Amino acid sequence: MKPITLKDLALKLNISVTTVSKALKGYSDVSKSTRDAVFALAEEMNYTPNSVAVNLRTRQTNTIGVIIPTIVHQFFSKVIDGIIEEAEKKGYLVITLQSNESVKLEKKQIDLLLNKRVDGILISLANDQKEIKHLQKVINKKTPLVLFDKISKSLVCSKVVINDREAAYNAVTHLIQSGCKKIAHFRGPLNPQNSIDRYLGYRKALEDNNIKFDKSLIYTCEDVSFEEGYKFAEDIYEKNKDIDAVFAITDLVAVGAIAYFNENNIAVPNQISVIGFSNWFMSSVISPSLTTVDQPGYKMGKKALKLLFKEMNAQKKGKEFIPETIVLPTKIIKRNSTLI
Amino acid sequence: MKPITLKDLALKLNISVTTVSKALKGYSDVSKSTRDAVFALAEEMNYTPNSVAVNLRTRQTNTIGVIIPTIVHQFFSKVIDGIIEEAEKKGYLVITLQSNESVKLEKKQIDLLLNKRVDGILISLANDQKEIKHLQKVINKKTPLVLFDKISKSLVCSKVVINDREAAYNAVTHLIQSGCKKIAHFRGPLNPQNSIDRYLGYRKALEDNNIKFDKSLIYTCEDVSFEEGYKFAEDIYEKNKDIDAVFAITDLVAVGAIAYFNENNIAVPNQISVIGFSNWFMSSVISPSLTTVDQPGYKMGKKALKLLFKEMNAQKKGKEFIPETIVLPTKIIKRNSTLI
Repeated sequence: MKPITLKDLALKLNISVTTVSKALKGYSDVSKSTRDAVFALAEEMNYTPNSVAVNLRTRQTNTIGVIIPTIVHQFFSKVIDGIIEEAEKKGYLVITLQSNESVKLEKKQIDLLLNKRVDGILISLANDQKEIKHLQKVINKKTPLVLFDKISKSLVCSKVVINDREAAYNAVTHLIQSGCKKIAHFRGPLNPQNSIDRYLGYRKALEDNNIKFDKSLIYTCEDVSFEEGYKFAEDIYEKNKDIDAVFAITDLVAVGAIAYFNENNIAVPNQISVIGFSNWFMSSVISPSLTTVDQPGYKMGKKALKLLFKEMNAQKKGKEFIPETIVLPTKIIKRNSTLI
Repeated sequence: MKPITLKDLALKLNISVTTVSKALKGYSDVSKSTRDAVFALAEEMNYTPNSVAVNLRTRQTNTIGVIIPTIVHQFFSKVIDGIIEEAEKKGYLVITLQSNESVKLEKKQIDLLLNKRVDGILISLANDQKEIKHLQKVINKKTPLVLFDKISKSLVCSKVVINDREAAYNAVTHLIQSGCKKIAHFRGPLNPQNSIDRYLGYRKALEDNNIKFDKSLIYTCEDVSFEEGYKFAEDIYEKNKDIDAVFAITDLVAVGAIAYFNENNIAVPNQISVIGFSNWFMSSVISPSLTTVDQPGYKMGKKALKLLFKEMNAQKKGKEFIPETIVLPTKIIKRNSTLI
């Protein structure tokens, strides 16, 4: 298929090529209604600027956009740390946005970044992700895109992840090897791929060790909070006095569970072992300190930006870029909330 | 004095007014050497664009720049959270940079943001701040500027702070009221104003309660880290078995001290009370939980951005703006590391 040109857009709208070009570049001497019409048609016809135009654009902004669910979570602030440091080296500026786990906000932010003509976008998806049209638009516009941590399998673009299923499998196997048999899982929300994968890793570890899966030992976090960890620990202990371990979706939830157990004189790890996921700083200073899976946030940020630059550079040179997926290794940090 | 105009610059450099104007706007058809010469002279002659030009600029970027020492500290990630949320409401994008406590990097980042023509800059200063020329440049260029948390008293611009001296005074008074008499202070580095103010608050509280100041009870943190808190706790306890309290510059340092006391069976608070500063989340989940001063990071971020917008709006309307200083209230969060 012949690629759509500025001329095609101009003919359809019955305006000059110059006006179309100016509208796409966001010049202020084009009226808002014309600009909107041009953008709508460009999107509808899947217009993408040619490589020279892309080059011009690339030279202009030297900024990249990052969308994360929330910055106050230590994992994401570490990711941002890695991204900013890597960007600094190349003289790039980083625009940081927070979706607050809202896809609606995420869509708006993608548009803001595209209008701002950032040279590339890094994103970790909001939890309630059901459609990916707004991200497909980024790809269609040939704006380099890298997903990290919370990704969508259906998007064809670069990704930096950990193997959540394997990491969860290893965490639960660690509990089983220490003698635990009745292991609860405080899982994450139903949509995010990493929460699904950790749940599947939990199930596979049980299966491989001939432990029957018991639905009543699964609790689903909505907010992935300290409070949920506390509440679920209380609830499960009321109903199952004989549970001997909890595998939590993230350290914050695990720390909530430990707080409940501590307050109620339920010995961790002697009566109930607890294992977290992410390795926040606080996990090393609470009592008992938390055994957890180390999730390399800082390294993930650096790798994601490197991958983005790789795509940007390929584009500048007019070379084809084949999306890559980098899987970062994780490891279990053994502390005092488990028996071994 | 007559304000410097584009024409003055053009005459001095023996080039056209158009070239000067294009150079200042960063147009690519002006050579780098000309652009550099124009910028150097504009700075030397203290040229500031007139309000119409400022208006044009303001309409163009819709971005603001934020420089913080480090994002992985929970206080600063809360500030960024507040800034991004407030910016979101107004359709502004936030460029986040980290100085890593280096003034050299901070200077470079200020230049990057000015070249990027951000509409305003928010900054919390690096610790080794000795000169402020790079910040004076921002003010001279009439780019709205707000300092927050770590400020310089010598700059005439808006500021959002807490009353560090009073907050520290209250923290130490709290220790004294609980019966403590030999109170150590693990202070921050010598330069930052907030670290000086907390130290002065500590001294004033001792003085007002007729407790003699003892230099040997002061330890100075360089990195403001967990490790320093741990190390200083060990050192002071070796030398002064009878100390009965520690006031730490920040929670991280206090948590390090508590870790040392816990490991060596020194009862907190019965033998030694510990009070922190900042109220990180981890302080509520460690054992014993940490009494601390709540420092409102999220609110500080929101207020700083609101103040920046106020200045930007005044500038758009060509109105004079008088810098404001907002002092946010703090409060002591009583937990289990102190006797009352």
